[in-house]
Amino acid sequence: MALMDISIIPLGTGSTSLSKYIADIEKYLIEKNIPHALTDMGTIIEGDVDTLLKIARELHEIPFKAGAKRVYMAIKIDDRRDKETHLGEKVKRVKSKL
Amino acid sequence: MALMDISIIPLGTGSTSLSKYIADIEKYLIEKNIPHALTDMGTIIEGDVDTLLKIARELHEIPFKAGAKRVYMAIKIDDRRDKETHLGEKVKRVKSKL
Amino acid sequence: MALMDISIIPLGTGSTSLSKYIADIEKYLIEKNIPHALTDMGTIIEGDVDTLLKIARELHEIPFKAGAKRVYMAIKIDDRRDKETHLGEKVKRVKSKL
Amino acid sequence: MALMDISIIPLGTGSTSLSKYIADIEKYLIEKNIPHALTDMGTIIEGDVDTLLKIARELHEIPFKAGAKRVYMAIKIDDRRDKETHLGEKVKRVKSKL
Repeated sequence: MALMDISIIPLGTGSTSLSKYIADIEKYLIEKNIPHALTDMGTIIEGDVDTLLKIARELHEIPFKAGAKRVYMAIKIDDRRDKETHLGEKVKRVKSKL
Repeated sequence: MALMDISIIPLGTGSTSLSKYIADIEKYLIEKNIPHALTDMGTIIEGDVDTLLKIARELHEIPFKAGAKRVYMAIKIDDRRDKETHLGEKVKRVKSKL
Repeated sequence: MALMDISIIPLGTGSTSLSKYIADIEKYLIEKNIPHALTDMGTIIEGDVDTLLKIARELHEIPFKAGAKRVYMAIKIDDRRDKETHLGEKVKRVKSKL
Repeated sequence: MALMDISIIPLGTGSTSLSKYIADIEKYLIEKNIPHALTDMGTIIEGDVDTLLKIARELHEIPFKAGAKRVYMAIKIDDRRDKETHLGEKVKRVKSKL
């Protein structure tokens, strides 16, 4: 299991507000029952790498469907094969060391 | 006010676990009373850009003090000058549009 | 056509040098004839988004095959649908405006 | 010495073309004689971390001066203390292993 942090940013939209695009992405993740956490700077999704990149592909298309002509996507994937990783566990491990 | 997402990754440490390094960073932010939110993929910090980059500079040094010889830091800053931004507000705005 | 900047970083390897892992990735891209440019901070690859994410999936696996137990991958994709984009063209457009 | 990869993206500008903003950044770096390499996905700059973050601060302001109201900046810094790093050397080390 891996974790992906994904930010999807439509460019050249003419408005500084992007929350409607992010709401479309959030709706998609909720409808598909994909385990995730929305943060102020992106969305963190749990899954194996194959699944994560397929989801990234789907999410990337959402702003184009809403009219964007250019989309910038930033992804970070942390994939650890020696240990299971689930949403919330890394924060818990850090907090146990404070 | 801007938001910064920061990930600090020591390289070549010989262990796949990095939580003790992240705990050092979390301790620093708590001690200094810096408004932040720890996520599974990084830390989100609120402040003006001058302050945020000064904090990034301090955090970057922490793994070196703990013995790391190479550190990889990834920062994303979202700086909006037409509107105040605080921790938690972007998530709230998105959720109000669901 | 889109461009992808990809950095693949094995964690916990015990050595601060990562160039042999990056050489494996470079070899893969050369063998497969994938249009790309190696930089000091990553690799830039040209293609449509489907292809780019499939390549990312392949590259992500390479350090695991070489023994890594944890891999951190950072991707940025710039996808512009109103104009063709090819490797080298963005730099050229900027330089024409200097 | 460290290397920084920096991408500065004005949001909500109403145009999908960003090359004039990047040209402003490129001009600044040339005028100040800062060692750097422009790529299709960002700019790579060489320096110690203090200097790099000061430059990031300056570059971040450039699109605001040109009228942008929201700027998204993505930075990656690779800081290795056991070895000198200069622009072009990492690519050279990888190529020597092909």
